[in-house]
Amino acid sequence: MLVKMTLEEFGLVLGSDAPAPGGGSVAALSGALGAELVAMVCRLSIGKKDLEAFTDEIKSALPKADGLAAGLLRRVDLDTEAFNSVMAAFKLPKGTDDEKQKRAAAIQQGYKEAVQSPLSIARECITVLNLSQSLLGKTNPNALSDLGVAAQQAYAGLEGAIMNVKINLPSIKDEQFKTAITGELAQLLSDGREAKEHVYDYVCGKL
Amino acid sequence: MLVKMTLEEFGLVLGSDAPAPGGGSVAALSGALGAELVAMVCRLSIGKKDLEAFTDEIKSALPKADGLAAGLLRRVDLDTEAFNSVMAAFKLPKGTDDEKQKRAAAIQQGYKEAVQSPLSIARECITVLNLSQSLLGKTNPNALSDLGVAAQQAYAGLEGAIMNVKINLPSIKDEQFKTAITGELAQLLSDGREAKEHVYDYVCGKL
Repeated sequence: MLVKMTLEEFGLVLGSDAPAPGGGSVAALSGALGAELVAMVCRLSIGKKDLEAFTDEIKSALPKADGLAAGLLRRVDLDTEAFNSVMAAFKLPKGTDDEKQKRAAAIQQGYKEAVQSPLSIARECITVLNLSQSLLGKTNPNALSDLGVAAQQAYAGLEGAIMNVKINLPSIKDEQFKTAITGELAQLLSDGREAKEHVYDYVCGKL
Repeated sequence: MLVKMTLEEFGLVLGSDAPAPGGGSVAALSGALGAELVAMVCRLSIGKKDLEAFTDEIKSALPKADGLAAGLLRRVDLDTEAFNSVMAAFKLPKGTDDEKQKRAAAIQQGYKEAVQSPLSIARECITVLNLSQSLLGKTNPNALSDLGVAAQQAYAGLEGAIMNVKINLPSIKDEQFKTAITGELAQLLSDGREAKEHVYDYVCGKL
């Protein structure tokens, strides 16, 4: 499992000539780092006297951040598995017509999973981004830059995941599936950009 | 050492109520992930027939990417050490005038290091970003989204590092030092945004 590797080991396998893990797993990790920073900022804010008015909101954000971090960390491995299942489908036998059909169906199924995986990463990253935005002005000011970095990481995960959806879409033949996903990607990107710019401007305005 | 932790362990210590590691170490890790992806893309491109014209350039980019990855990974630990040295300075005795002076000087020195650390991260992240931009159109098209994710991660590391410089600047009394750094940050941010948008538009235009 990738998440059982040290940062150093993960770096070596990432930088190697193995195509997986690649950008999809990195996007998931980036989102997880963002969620972990949101969780840290919540923990550094609970119990602060000046922030009493926001205690309930921070306490409700904390388990969300922890949950998103755990979910996105799982996706580091899941995304690499999805990629490997496409590769495995390509290696299926294609001697007889029956084998050719089964192989083509397995490849299509593999690509759909290879699209669903980064799509889920993108959705979870924007949830992290919105969570960090919702906490602006309500958390420990000493950790304001951490909240800003959280949003950056979530946004990088979002854009990275979107690119990983897009690289696999042309291989899919189901046009309805493709149209629905293309529309969702455009919305996610536009919402994400707005949220990320808002957080950056707020944070830098206060520093 | 943080880099000897697994991704899971790092996530737990990051999300905990310990103020360090925080956003600075995450910015360094983000840049390292970007550099590792650039290295992977180079390795997946060397020896490809269609890319022969770019082989020399890719071969010269690979050790740069590996070196940046190793350097930024080291900064994951260094940034947390810099933060901890500021915290240690605040705990110095301040009973006598002499102790007060020594403590104040140690705090100032600590803050300068706490600014230099993310500044170095920012400079290295933009080098990763420029390296990924310089490789557009010259690498394995199957790994195009990975090159895009590399640039995203490097840019997130850049913005994150800039916020970590900014949060420590107001504590520094040396005005000349502050003015020089503020100017450099503005330039890094403007160059980084342009490079990152260019990579994203190029990658999405090809997908």
